[in-house]
Amino acid sequence: MHNIITTDVLKTMIPCEFEDYRNGGNDIRRSLTHAVMGKIDSPHGWSTDCEYRTEFGGLFPVQCRYTPAHAHFHIVLCSPGEVTPVWLMVFVSGNGHPVSVVRTLEEFNPQLIAHTLSLTDRLDSDGYSADNIIRTLAMEGTL
Amino acid sequence: MHNIITTDVLKTMIPCEFEDYRNGGNDIRRSLTHAVMGKIDSPHGWSTDCEYRTEFGGLFPVQCRYTPAHAHFHIVLCSPGEVTPVWLMVFVSGNGHPVSVVRTLEEFNPQLIAHTLSLTDRLDSDGYSADNIIRTLAMEGTL
Repeated sequence: MHNIITTDVLKTMIPCEFEDYRNGGNDIRRSLTHAVMGKIDSPHGWSTDCEYRTEFGGLFPVQCRYTPAHAHFHIVLCSPGEVTPVWLMVFVSGNGHPVSVVRTLEEFNPQLIAHTLSLTDRLDSDGYSADNIIRTLAMEGTL
Repeated sequence: MHNIITTDVLKTMIPCEFEDYRNGGNDIRRSLTHAVMGKIDSPHGWSTDCEYRTEFGGLFPVQCRYTPAHAHFHIVLCSPGEVTPVWLMVFVSGNGHPVSVVRTLEEFNPQLIAHTLSLTDRLDSDGYSADNIIRTLAMEGTL
């Protein structure tokens, strides 16, 4: 199952197909999650954690958290499924606020996801506050 | 702050106003969460847990989990905000699947939320499987 989940396959999947993977069991869901994760370059020094059962709330078939070393915030990538028909990238502050959807994607686009992570890393390294990072990402224009 | 968050206030709040409460800090957000929780009757023997920081993933200004004693599943209530423009009630199985949005609400309606919880409890007590509970709740017709 793992080998056939290419970027092109992910681009064509509709929300209920992501749910089908989840409903196929934890092994199948893990294959999907790893297929997504494997296609996204994260910034140097960041960690990536994914959900395998319900540890991040269980609401999305694929949920990956990208976290800089200082861990003051995450960028959370949520797949389409029951809760959302599109991919979401959400800035989540470690202390609970602010939280903001910084990008939505109609179809899977690992380059654009990686670009958003990279820009976040750059702004963070330059000392931007959470609010300013959110504002700058929003200005990129796909919201 | 706590006293003024009536059901009528909650009914009129738009998504960004829920985010405003969250951004007002943890105390203000807790007042909002408790105002929501206090208006919903949960079934006898169920427990209710709410998010105060990011322990359930941090994606919704208000997130409450209603859980029967056996804890094989939760019904998760998510408020409008950045991620969703409407209230969501989501059936989340303890083992990670199935997960299904069983009701959406354009405005806060504690009676309808309580009714959905009560019906879930009744079906569960009658031995319905997760899939059958989801199917029956969906047949109620607001999806």
